[in-house]
Amino acid sequence: MGSVFGHLFRISTFGESHGGGVGVVIDGVPARTRVDLDRIQHELDRRRPGQSRLVTQRDESDRVEALSGIDDGHATGAPIALLVRNKDARSGAYDHLRDVYRPSHADFAYDQKYGHRTIAGGGRSSARETIGRVAAGAIAMAVLEQLAQTAGSAPVEIVSWVDSVRDIEADVDTQIVAREQIEAHPTRCPDVDAAAAMTTAIENARRNGNSLGGTVRAVVRNVPAGLGAPVFDRLEADLAKAMLSLPATKGFEVGSGFAGTRMTGLEHNDPFVPSESGPITATNHSGGVQGGISNGADLLFRVAFKPTATISSAQDTVTVGGEATTLAAKGRHDPCVLPRAVPMVDAMTALVLVDHVLRQQPNELLPAIG
Amino acid sequence: MGSVFGHLFRISTFGESHGGGVGVVIDGVPARTRVDLDRIQHELDRRRPGQSRLVTQRDESDRVEALSGIDDGHATGAPIALLVRNKDARSGAYDHLRDVYRPSHADFAYDQKYGHRTIAGGGRSSARETIGRVAAGAIAMAVLEQLAQTAGSAPVEIVSWVDSVRDIEADVDTQIVAREQIEAHPTRCPDVDAAAAMTTAIENARRNGNSLGGTVRAVVRNVPAGLGAPVFDRLEADLAKAMLSLPATKGFEVGSGFAGTRMTGLEHNDPFVPSESGPITATNHSGGVQGGISNGADLLFRVAFKPTATISSAQDTVTVGGEATTLAAKGRHDPCVLPRAVPMVDAMTALVLVDHVLRQQPNELLPAIG
Amino acid sequence: MGSVFGHLFRISTFGESHGGGVGVVIDGVPARTRVDLDRIQHELDRRRPGQSRLVTQRDESDRVEALSGIDDGHATGAPIALLVRNKDARSGAYDHLRDVYRPSHADFAYDQKYGHRTIAGGGRSSARETIGRVAAGAIAMAVLEQLAQTAGSAPVEIVSWVDSVRDIEADVDTQIVAREQIEAHPTRCPDVDAAAAMTTAIENARRNGNSLGGTVRAVVRNVPAGLGAPVFDRLEADLAKAMLSLPATKGFEVGSGFAGTRMTGLEHNDPFVPSESGPITATNHSGGVQGGISNGADLLFRVAFKPTATISSAQDTVTVGGEATTLAAKGRHDPCVLPRAVPMVDAMTALVLVDHVLRQQPNELLPAIG
Amino acid sequence: MGSVFGHLFRISTFGESHGGGVGVVIDGVPARTRVDLDRIQHELDRRRPGQSRLVTQRDESDRVEALSGIDDGHATGAPIALLVRNKDARSGAYDHLRDVYRPSHADFAYDQKYGHRTIAGGGRSSARETIGRVAAGAIAMAVLEQLAQTAGSAPVEIVSWVDSVRDIEADVDTQIVAREQIEAHPTRCPDVDAAAAMTTAIENARRNGNSLGGTVRAVVRNVPAGLGAPVFDRLEADLAKAMLSLPATKGFEVGSGFAGTRMTGLEHNDPFVPSESGPITATNHSGGVQGGISNGADLLFRVAFKPTATISSAQDTVTVGGEATTLAAKGRHDPCVLPRAVPMVDAMTALVLVDHVLRQQPNELLPAIG
Repeated sequence: MGSVFGHLFRISTFGESHGGGVGVVIDGVPARTRVDLDRIQHELDRRRPGQSRLVTQRDESDRVEALSGIDDGHATGAPIALLVRNKDARSGAYDHLRDVYRPSHADFAYDQKYGHRTIAGGGRSSARETIGRVAAGAIAMAVLEQLAQTAGSAPVEIVSWVDSVRDIEADVDTQIVAREQIEAHPTRCPDVDAAAAMTTAIENARRNGNSLGGTVRAVVRNVPAGLGAPVFDRLEADLAKAMLSLPATKGFEVGSGFAGTRMTGLEHNDPFVPSESGPITATNHSGGVQGGISNGADLLFRVAFKPTATISSAQDTVTVGGEATTLAAKGRHDPCVLPRAVPMVDAMTALVLVDHVLRQQPNELLPAIG
Repeated sequence: MGSVFGHLFRISTFGESHGGGVGVVIDGVPARTRVDLDRIQHELDRRRPGQSRLVTQRDESDRVEALSGIDDGHATGAPIALLVRNKDARSGAYDHLRDVYRPSHADFAYDQKYGHRTIAGGGRSSARETIGRVAAGAIAMAVLEQLAQTAGSAPVEIVSWVDSVRDIEADVDTQIVAREQIEAHPTRCPDVDAAAAMTTAIENARRNGNSLGGTVRAVVRNVPAGLGAPVFDRLEADLAKAMLSLPATKGFEVGSGFAGTRMTGLEHNDPFVPSESGPITATNHSGGVQGGISNGADLLFRVAFKPTATISSAQDTVTVGGEATTLAAKGRHDPCVLPRAVPMVDAMTALVLVDHVLRQQPNELLPAIG
Repeated sequence: MGSVFGHLFRISTFGESHGGGVGVVIDGVPARTRVDLDRIQHELDRRRPGQSRLVTQRDESDRVEALSGIDDGHATGAPIALLVRNKDARSGAYDHLRDVYRPSHADFAYDQKYGHRTIAGGGRSSARETIGRVAAGAIAMAVLEQLAQTAGSAPVEIVSWVDSVRDIEADVDTQIVAREQIEAHPTRCPDVDAAAAMTTAIENARRNGNSLGGTVRAVVRNVPAGLGAPVFDRLEADLAKAMLSLPATKGFEVGSGFAGTRMTGLEHNDPFVPSESGPITATNHSGGVQGGISNGADLLFRVAFKPTATISSAQDTVTVGGEATTLAAKGRHDPCVLPRAVPMVDAMTALVLVDHVLRQQPNELLPAIG
Repeated sequence: MGSVFGHLFRISTFGESHGGGVGVVIDGVPARTRVDLDRIQHELDRRRPGQSRLVTQRDESDRVEALSGIDDGHATGAPIALLVRNKDARSGAYDHLRDVYRPSHADFAYDQKYGHRTIAGGGRSSARETIGRVAAGAIAMAVLEQLAQTAGSAPVEIVSWVDSVRDIEADVDTQIVAREQIEAHPTRCPDVDAAAAMTTAIENARRNGNSLGGTVRAVVRNVPAGLGAPVFDRLEADLAKAMLSLPATKGFEVGSGFAGTRMTGLEHNDPFVPSESGPITATNHSGGVQGGISNGADLLFRVAFKPTATISSAQDTVTVGGEATTLAAKGRHDPCVLPRAVPMVDAMTALVLVDHVLRQQPNELLPAIG
């Protein structure tokens, strides 16, 4: 267990940084969904290394191949398997790690769990594992859009961006920020001034053999009301699990989050006001969920990513044999994962939403009580 | 879906604040586990209303009855069903809510999802739903202890407490804080000074028809290394889902959390140092999980609870018919959920851990490679 | 694991023959379904002991109580918990079984699995466990009917009956047999002559301290085409699991079944012929499923039940201590489970169908390709 | 949903007869299991077409590639993805089927479910889908063997064979039959005389444009006692689902099966007798399961396969447009699936058993009561 996510739109990812390839099998894509490989490739390009000087310079071109489940550009209803071949292995680059536990990396815990570890490239903890998620997320987005189109409603719009790097915080209007602004800068921060400062900070970190963390913020617009459940499968609970399942994450908050704990109930409650489309909330401290269920307001949440564990500065650690030693990692690594984390957050959000949408019983399934 | 939690230790909760009762069915309790109803009752008493003047004064004595799965004080391996009868209904107390959507409460979202809502007591969103979780959590704790005892290892120790109420923050040494200190004060804050300030703040909030939020912090000691998984079922991801599935939660962080995003990699990485029991970390920014898997260090996490939505001050809202109106809630409500949230956090932690422990393949399952 | 069934209409049964009671929690009943406790009680009465001289004379009146999830006669969308209290315990009746493994009963295997066993009444293997299934099945039937009514289509009609007892076979026209004919005779065999012969055979078996087995046959009419899946979750695979999960079952066949293995492809294939409602099959050797998916024809299947293991004749067996001994069971037992198995087969069929119906994506979810 | 099987050893199959390839992702292979690709290939060779003149002559060499989860011949604990490329497409061979529903084939039901169908090669209903199952089954067998080896117990031995073709029945001693005898003849029937008669019958059927069905019988030796559960996840229920999920299956029976319904309880009950290893049964009408749980005796079951639907004789059917027509299938098809079904039954058996073994809590987990 552990590599399967979702109930009705169920994905199984596979693959490590070294070996035949990485990918995903998606079970539950509704038949007749249009599936555009270019769009999947576009999302993969957003997450791939080497896309800018801010991220790792490893060359991973990451071309996706569809193995099954698609016929003439449409989902057949069968599982869709997507494969991206590995290349640029250079596994010799990992020889110096063979006998050393990297601080704050997965390899010690792996050894404890599995009784062995894959040293090269981080094994299953490699960021390459997220290729399968991002590819599946692209299909999830297509399903959400096409279901909305069929229903004649506005399509779900998932927009996430780099909200902070270390102590540099972006100032962004969540109500209007659009993906074009985010993609306009390699940091994926739509606040131009903050983006410039982040760039400088990240380049300095790289130069110094150090790394930086930060936060990604997300807004989801046109979320149908009624997604989620009052108890375990609360929409925010499933989002929290999805986000904390991404590598390097340390926190999740929805709506007012931790800051909301400093407000009183009178300040925090979102008053309902009438509107043409029915009751809406005047504020959105709830972040679009109430009682675990979407209320039609924008979903708002934030995810914390720690600074990358792999750095080239020397650090104290211990060998596999239990001796104290010092390690300075070699190889090409991200000094800051945040820009590449944005498409991962987008993808996981889409995966959570599509699963809840498919699970949702149509409101008109049974007649009103009266 | 939505009321089932866990894979190998699987609980199904049921019940609303009004009706025959609330409870839980637990499938997967290992046969021969000693099950002590007094201990379950003790945990329920920690979460019940009326236990101090800081919480709601509703009288819910909440006596638990075991319906099945226990024979002569031991689990038989069959599902254990636990039932707590409802009483003290006073459903007339909810008449004034029949036609009004309460701000930041679940009822509007319910209406959108289910096409109807249970007004009395919040239906399924009632805090009474957590009775089933707390009862199941008490059994999960017993399983964890008895498995450790059989294995000859130190028992998992789950300790959580009220870490802040609004802006009053406790100063607690996570390495030594013990449950007795926490239970010594009705706030469940083990910092005596902070506890006093919290008490005053909560009483003021009640008097003013207002409410307060805060955070619960948890430490788990003696966690076996190797729990969790590298991808979706990361230990912190399952904890995040568990915590965000509790009513009124808005955030979760593990280890350094959001504050960790302001550190550099060099500051944040936990150096390994040799010890008699093998490599340990000198610091614990990781919070006990690396690569999604427990590393043997203390688990550390924090959960944000918003101020209670139900307050007696007047607030703007909208009627079911769509008209603007004003609502001042009647009835007896918690001005601050934090003290009663502590046993809920304990229970959900135990439920996550026991499921991962049972899922874990014993290290000696297959011989070492080499 | 082991006591949960279904994905979107998920039931957790609990309870043994001795203890507080037996019941079920059902998660996934669509909100606003009308739920009629009298109907649930009616199905329970069909399975209860003592209903005729053909079945065990234990007095179990089995009144069902709804604990949650129902408001004013309708499902709220929350889990529905149903409880039937145990009574008439007479556990002393089991004293003679304390140290003996009953032949072909569960107690030896229990000992191997759980390291202990509940002697009284068979523990979890008691036929009383099926109370939860039958109660849940009655709600499943109501959901199926009401969904069909909302859609304007003919309601799914599940009809099963005793098809054979030992070598006495009923001659029944599956196209027209109706539940009233089945309920008209205590054997639940609608062939009057066969029913009379079965009655005599069962009464003889009881007199002789022996027991009989037989088969239940089922037809399901108005099954929507498109239920099921091509691979693991084939409709017949889920029916097979459901039926083999009932106590005392030894076999399942759909459509032509084992007899169909003696036909050639030319004889066995069901030719399509045009009809006003589209293509239909001229024969139905397929039993209503093709490629794992319902094709709109009647579902046809058959289930084998072995003769009851508990008999009052003396049999060779072994004590818990490993000594050869002889056992003649005391107490009141069914000489033939078949009449009481019929409502169980009905219930499991309804549970499988409702889960597949809820899982089904509406055909109009996405536009046609072309 | 529908293409995922298992809980702790969870497989996701993908792929159709035409397209990039078919395969499987296996989540839950215990780390350090030796994985031998030659053995997987060997099992695939047993199921592939063209292996004898008795089966379809399509050329599918079916070389398996491991994409992930294996390092230096051992499972790493990460998902194992296995891929077999498609070739020899000849999709023009299916042009004559574009507008016609094949009798007793999946395409009409697909149209009803998905609103479209993949004509070429049967899409997801292609026997090629079973490649993923057979490959996963080979790994499941390796896990079962190595767990037994570690535990010092005799390895689980799964042996299945062709028991009948049409009315030709094999006479086989289930206690001693071995795989070598089965593999010695292309029919996979270890009774030499019956095998010869089956060969003639199958060759005649092919010549006449017809097809034959039959049964596969299986014995599993050295099954640990205690696998299964008393209620839904009974061992025989999971086997029934597994077998009925194979293409062309119409029935399943365990132990005495349908024939057992003609015995009395006194005849059918399996008397316990003392043995050196504890109580064993003198007969095995139970088929190795009692109360849903393995009792240590051989597992015995039988599976019915209908005659292949695709035949070259002319048959009545209906066009997609609803007009009556006649169809004579072209292409190369199996006149009898039985010989190739044997490795599929082996594989599904291994998948069910390994999942139950991993789910099983070790008996020594908790101390004995008393």
